[in-house]
Amino acid sequence: MKKTKRVRQEELKTRIEQMPFTTDEELAKSFGVSIQTIRLDRMELGIPELRERIKSVATQEWNETVKALPVEEIIGEVVDLELDDRAISILDIRPEHVFSRNHIARGHHLFAQANSLAVALINDELALTARSTIHFSRPVKLGERVVAKATAKGEDDKGRTIVSVHSFVGNEEVFAGTFEMYRSNQ
Amino acid sequence: MKKTKRVRQEELKTRIEQMPFTTDEELAKSFGVSIQTIRLDRMELGIPELRERIKSVATQEWNETVKALPVEEIIGEVVDLELDDRAISILDIRPEHVFSRNHIARGHHLFAQANSLAVALINDELALTARSTIHFSRPVKLGERVVAKATAKGEDDKGRTIVSVHSFVGNEEVFAGTFEMYRSNQ
Repeated sequence: MKKTKRVRQEELKTRIEQMPFTTDEELAKSFGVSIQTIRLDRMELGIPELRERIKSVATQEWNETVKALPVEEIIGEVVDLELDDRAISILDIRPEHVFSRNHIARGHHLFAQANSLAVALINDELALTARSTIHFSRPVKLGERVVAKATAKGEDDKGRTIVSVHSFVGNEEVFAGTFEMYRSNQ
Repeated sequence: MKKTKRVRQEELKTRIEQMPFTTDEELAKSFGVSIQTIRLDRMELGIPELRERIKSVATQEWNETVKALPVEEIIGEVVDLELDDRAISILDIRPEHVFSRNHIARGHHLFAQANSLAVALINDELALTARSTIHFSRPVKLGERVVAKATAKGEDDKGRTIVSVHSFVGNEEVFAGTFEMYRSNQ
């Protein structure tokens, strides 16, 4: 049975609060309605479009400066950062990121997003990746938006910072990686 | 004591036979002579320049066709390939591959070279990376040439092909990785 508009709008509001980086396309698919319906719902609810939501998160929370590399060298768009603690970035999978044959994102782009986020997280002038273990849990397709979340997990016995990164499309995990980061103050 | 020309030329010949992808710059450094001296030595010995050596290796040995992706989507230049067995590629580290700040190659480019070589090795229409463990053993600098060597190591219990990749600058290992490859005939 189709949900009433009231129910759908309530659920939509909750969903966007929980997953602020979700797209209108993903929401439309999930609710079984058209993208236009989602846009109208958002307007009625006073919820800004995704690009604005990202900007507002960035302004509210991202008040730190990347130290280990110039921000334009980060693969993906950083939307949250607390140095030596956590970071979030977004990468939209465009034609240059996929295999031409099947439109599946190439692994090294997901790796690049996660790895450069791990570098950006480090509160030091120099951060280099020493080791990494990664796992691609499901193929990512052209047009999907990958949200990578990095968390600092402390230091190992060599003084390297362990950074854990999990990347999602919607609420589905597509990539997980652990990065051992060498840093200049070691 | 400086080696005589005869001794140097004999050693040079052996060295190039063992490491055909070594550059004149690397040889000059290793023998403690100028690049011009190495060039003259090569001319006297009738050893072609690196680009020609690469081409001749490619023509002699690389008689297989990449199946899992179009050859132009491989990161690096493939110079040897036996499907489901082994593959070699070369990547010259150019300005677009390095951190602007310290001219060290970014990890995802070394990963991309190794990972795309692991894909290229697979004798199947579809090859996707499921898991990988990698190790960066020393920073690679702008201008260095990275030779990646991939070897198929058989299948795991899930039917995934294990590919081991070791990447070198000269005879020094700079990267090692193990890739678990999902393939379409699984």
